[in-house]
Amino acid sequence: MLAVTFQEPGRVAVEERPEPEPIESDDAVVRVDASGICGSDLHIFHGRVQIEPGFTIGHEYVGTVVAAGDGVSQVSVGDRVLGTFHSACGHCFFCRKGVFQKCDESRVFGHGKTLGSLQGTQAEQVLVPHANLTLRRVPEGLSNEAALFAGDVMGTGYHAVVAAGLEPGDTVAVVGLGPVGLCAIMAARVAGAARVIAIDMVAERLEKARELGAEPVHLTDEDPRAAVKAATDGRGVDVAVEAVGNGQALDLACRLARKAGTVSVVGVHAERTEVHMGVVWIKNLNFVTGHANVMGHLDPVLSLMAAGRLDPTPLVTHHMKLADAQEAYETYAEHKALKIVLSA
Amino acid sequence: MLAVTFQEPGRVAVEERPEPEPIESDDAVVRVDASGICGSDLHIFHGRVQIEPGFTIGHEYVGTVVAAGDGVSQVSVGDRVLGTFHSACGHCFFCRKGVFQKCDESRVFGHGKTLGSLQGTQAEQVLVPHANLTLRRVPEGLSNEAALFAGDVMGTGYHAVVAAGLEPGDTVAVVGLGPVGLCAIMAARVAGAARVIAIDMVAERLEKARELGAEPVHLTDEDPRAAVKAATDGRGVDVAVEAVGNGQALDLACRLARKAGTVSVVGVHAERTEVHMGVVWIKNLNFVTGHANVMGHLDPVLSLMAAGRLDPTPLVTHHMKLADAQEAYETYAEHKALKIVLSA
Amino acid sequence: MLAVTFQEPGRVAVEERPEPEPIESDDAVVRVDASGICGSDLHIFHGRVQIEPGFTIGHEYVGTVVAAGDGVSQVSVGDRVLGTFHSACGHCFFCRKGVFQKCDESRVFGHGKTLGSLQGTQAEQVLVPHANLTLRRVPEGLSNEAALFAGDVMGTGYHAVVAAGLEPGDTVAVVGLGPVGLCAIMAARVAGAARVIAIDMVAERLEKARELGAEPVHLTDEDPRAAVKAATDGRGVDVAVEAVGNGQALDLACRLARKAGTVSVVGVHAERTEVHMGVVWIKNLNFVTGHANVMGHLDPVLSLMAAGRLDPTPLVTHHMKLADAQEAYETYAEHKALKIVLSA
Amino acid sequence: MLAVTFQEPGRVAVEERPEPEPIESDDAVVRVDASGICGSDLHIFHGRVQIEPGFTIGHEYVGTVVAAGDGVSQVSVGDRVLGTFHSACGHCFFCRKGVFQKCDESRVFGHGKTLGSLQGTQAEQVLVPHANLTLRRVPEGLSNEAALFAGDVMGTGYHAVVAAGLEPGDTVAVVGLGPVGLCAIMAARVAGAARVIAIDMVAERLEKARELGAEPVHLTDEDPRAAVKAATDGRGVDVAVEAVGNGQALDLACRLARKAGTVSVVGVHAERTEVHMGVVWIKNLNFVTGHANVMGHLDPVLSLMAAGRLDPTPLVTHHMKLADAQEAYETYAEHKALKIVLSA
Repeated sequence: MLAVTFQEPGRVAVEERPEPEPIESDDAVVRVDASGICGSDLHIFHGRVQIEPGFTIGHEYVGTVVAAGDGVSQVSVGDRVLGTFHSACGHCFFCRKGVFQKCDESRVFGHGKTLGSLQGTQAEQVLVPHANLTLRRVPEGLSNEAALFAGDVMGTGYHAVVAAGLEPGDTVAVVGLGPVGLCAIMAARVAGAARVIAIDMVAERLEKARELGAEPVHLTDEDPRAAVKAATDGRGVDVAVEAVGNGQALDLACRLARKAGTVSVVGVHAERTEVHMGVVWIKNLNFVTGHANVMGHLDPVLSLMAAGRLDPTPLVTHHMKLADAQEAYETYAEHKALKIVLSA
Repeated sequence: MLAVTFQEPGRVAVEERPEPEPIESDDAVVRVDASGICGSDLHIFHGRVQIEPGFTIGHEYVGTVVAAGDGVSQVSVGDRVLGTFHSACGHCFFCRKGVFQKCDESRVFGHGKTLGSLQGTQAEQVLVPHANLTLRRVPEGLSNEAALFAGDVMGTGYHAVVAAGLEPGDTVAVVGLGPVGLCAIMAARVAGAARVIAIDMVAERLEKARELGAEPVHLTDEDPRAAVKAATDGRGVDVAVEAVGNGQALDLACRLARKAGTVSVVGVHAERTEVHMGVVWIKNLNFVTGHANVMGHLDPVLSLMAAGRLDPTPLVTHHMKLADAQEAYETYAEHKALKIVLSA
Repeated sequence: MLAVTFQEPGRVAVEERPEPEPIESDDAVVRVDASGICGSDLHIFHGRVQIEPGFTIGHEYVGTVVAAGDGVSQVSVGDRVLGTFHSACGHCFFCRKGVFQKCDESRVFGHGKTLGSLQGTQAEQVLVPHANLTLRRVPEGLSNEAALFAGDVMGTGYHAVVAAGLEPGDTVAVVGLGPVGLCAIMAARVAGAARVIAIDMVAERLEKARELGAEPVHLTDEDPRAAVKAATDGRGVDVAVEAVGNGQALDLACRLARKAGTVSVVGVHAERTEVHMGVVWIKNLNFVTGHANVMGHLDPVLSLMAAGRLDPTPLVTHHMKLADAQEAYETYAEHKALKIVLSA
Repeated sequence: MLAVTFQEPGRVAVEERPEPEPIESDDAVVRVDASGICGSDLHIFHGRVQIEPGFTIGHEYVGTVVAAGDGVSQVSVGDRVLGTFHSACGHCFFCRKGVFQKCDESRVFGHGKTLGSLQGTQAEQVLVPHANLTLRRVPEGLSNEAALFAGDVMGTGYHAVVAAGLEPGDTVAVVGLGPVGLCAIMAARVAGAARVIAIDMVAERLEKARELGAEPVHLTDEDPRAAVKAATDGRGVDVAVEAVGNGQALDLACRLARKAGTVSVVGVHAERTEVHMGVVWIKNLNFVTGHANVMGHLDPVLSLMAAGRLDPTPLVTHHMKLADAQEAYETYAEHKALKIVLSA
């Protein structure tokens, strides 16, 4: 079968690989019908996240079960399924609490040895461990390219607002309008945000935010703090979503939140950052941070998609062939795409 | 000034009454621009809820502040305001917990001696105690007849789903499609319900539910339990709202809820009822019951109305004059109206 | 091996049975070192809960793993373990939410065909399905007879107060002082109840409650409502635990709860019951009901036991031999024991 | 009357001041029977927090109501009362949510113009605004010096664990064993912490922590991270309380918390701090920060004190006379005292 593999910074290959087979009793093999390219893939492509050359990459996917071990009961051969970007064991301290993203045995697809040596999903087939939790049937009538989002970026958008305790009637700010930020806008709207202020510097993204029901504010040409004040009687937003992953975005989110508000940090942070704890503390802010519990949110996210209440397909800007992976990655790297869907 | 007073079962009068004046420092007087007739008013009209003859009735209202004591800081003379159906002291054990509807000093407008001897709002003016909590400014651009709902029936619809812990993606059933049930549909939609199953026997109400985004099911001509099963993979709904107030509706709600689901009892119960506790217990159901915390929900409800995300005005079927109160009550008693708005 | 089997109402036998072997990859076999007799066993003994003659009974147990399938990773052969009274699949809608007690594939030990045909634990060995979730290692230093409680009755006591949302400083009433009620007292104390009012009619149980830190009140010789009023400035308790399972106890719990309080129904209900919904509704009571999520509470309950903060051993009144099961059941049936521990 | 006033860094005076009188209808005047010296007072004493010379300082107090306006209903002249360190209006957006510590009109006793020009409580009498919320009756049988803690430091200890969502059975670390840290230990124990690891460098404080039921670990002589790992199967604590207020303590708290754990920042932060957001994010940590909601916690904290379950009196190391305020402040500044109680 064909698989997209990392070669060196800036270069992937489409190579022949042996078809996987179930090993453990709860493994399944999925024929990938569509896979997505995500911001995390780009970190690998650029070499910022290191991975073994030749390792298959990708972690967003929809497909069809072609083989399953004896212990797989939640999906069957022939089922159209989607998967989450990581697996979870279902039995450890964290899984027992339903915090699946922090499973002690969690493995992430397409991230090499450091995250569990699980070959990626930008391939014709993929081996899926713990298939009872990692896979879910796609609801009838839901397209592959919509379902693709449930296992990663839309699950993250949902998490951004639900983990923050958004209540219907709240006002939300979203800092950073990449795919996650845009999904957070959709989730905030569906969860009852009265108003969503969307902040970025890219005109197309601001326009997309507007189409999704948010009020776009340019980060530098306009004044986000003034805009938030005007929208909230001077108070600040109830929930500020930080979907960038750096200190400036985090600082802005802290400034935009009201007293006793929540800052939801879904942007990926990897380094030390200077935080104005004086501001955080005097405002009694709460932080929720880290990877989204995408697996835990799969049921509601799929229900909302199946009901047409969450529709991520406006984010799909490109459909490309698996064989053209190098071109796809270059397109994504040049910020010309929001979401590229690859198919065989 | 003119006021609508209870006379005897089936008869109200429009009588001259002295204009009220602030007595306590946190009292205000409001010139009533619009008041609503509610199901509770009908209980008084029919004599099922007893009240002193000559007592002014009504508890839904929007108006303009015409006088305010020294201690009133949250609204000013001249402000367009709406009020909640009851007052709360702001200081007792329950108010300190934010459970304003169970305030130890709570008084309900227009319900006579038993609920605090507070003259009603179907009048040209009304005295409002504890105005800092009981009144709120109407957001700019929001119509009087929309704002009217915030202080009672829409606050109750919001409470029905929020107090039940509805999470975005849940499926909800609403049993009983009077004004509260219909507002619960709107609130469930805005709070992220993936699907709302709406159950009643009146064709017009089922049609209204459909227009509001719910899936109508006739209580007897169709099979609500089968409809819920079909919508939920056989599981039952996450939240079942009982908006009728009798044993059969409560029993149906318990049957429709999934295991570990929540039954939200906003229909008014006043009597002993046979409950199949065996069903309740084996399903691990939770109940939330009682008066809505309308005062506690005022900020989010008004934010949602101001943003156009909650719009109760489709429920207003009649506009009538205060002077025609007898005719208005008769119309409501004949179930020809969902909401009648009275104005001077 | 020897096993205690149901024969006919009022009679059990100790019979020879074949030793079990793991069948599924996540099965384990446990050599039972101690098992308990529980109120539910008594329902079987009396024939009120029907079960096939010859079926092995019992569902509380501590023991040693003697065999385990390939897929068992959380415990190993040789580990001292305790089990929960039921198994759960770990993958269904309810397990994914952490509501393990309502697992779609849940099976209860020792309850015959209707609850999953899982042979009981009052035997020398027991087959344990889904061992990764159903078993847990006994913390070092914790005795078998303490650990025994974690998988059923103490987990239920913990659930009674935690599922009810008890906050440190609350006042709690416990109606019914059998083992579950007494465990609820312990859990309420450990969770920070300022005061616990304990209500029953049996002098020994009231005395036991007093020893555990509660304030005992005799149901009929004293006046529980007056006692609760005196303890709460006339308000009623924040949480009322109903640990009996009938209409009178439920009604009393509703009377004892304060406005907006919670009634935690852990007593088993199987029938229709008359509930004064007028009282429930006007007081804005919440109900939480049903089987305890014992599996979900295993980590904290064991931590508290290991730390010596929860100690159920004062409830163990009898140690008997498996071979003397008939005598043990008769003793329990005569209400002469709180907890009987059987060992081979 | 006599009052302790700030003069210049390092010097207070005891001066004659006019007795206060109620001005607003909900004002009360309290004769102070006991007042405490707190860490925040020390910031003023040292000049790190600026305040007008001659301003009366202090904000912890117990006393007797000697005058009250017409609108004061929750306490009466003659009542023995305690007060919170700040006042709250009871009507603003934040008070309506029960977030009293962020009241838009909040004023802090004894902190000069910047925090509302409210004369302090280290005086023979004090004027108390919004007395219905700011004062509470001392439960019968509770000593003045215990009650003193409820309105500030014990309310903060309670907040540290309750706002962090501590569940019974959790393991807690407390970094910093000043009065707030020690109160957090007490609160963690009462709220059901299975184990509390207490970290500091001062031997006396570690010993006090041990007496209160915690496991003391010396910050530098021992290895807090190793100690926490040993206590938690290598996982880290569920809740880490940071009760110091600097970057190193915050960093340590983040290291000690388990994945998806909560860091409760009650130590006062006023400046920019470097935070290892990479650690925070990859561990999915939550932060709760800021002033404690002491007013919101007054009911449960007093219930626990009245029941003898929270007893802060072991923290009182010195009783001194108001007239000896200079000496008292010097003693406190030399870290020779945990809590000094002043009386006339």
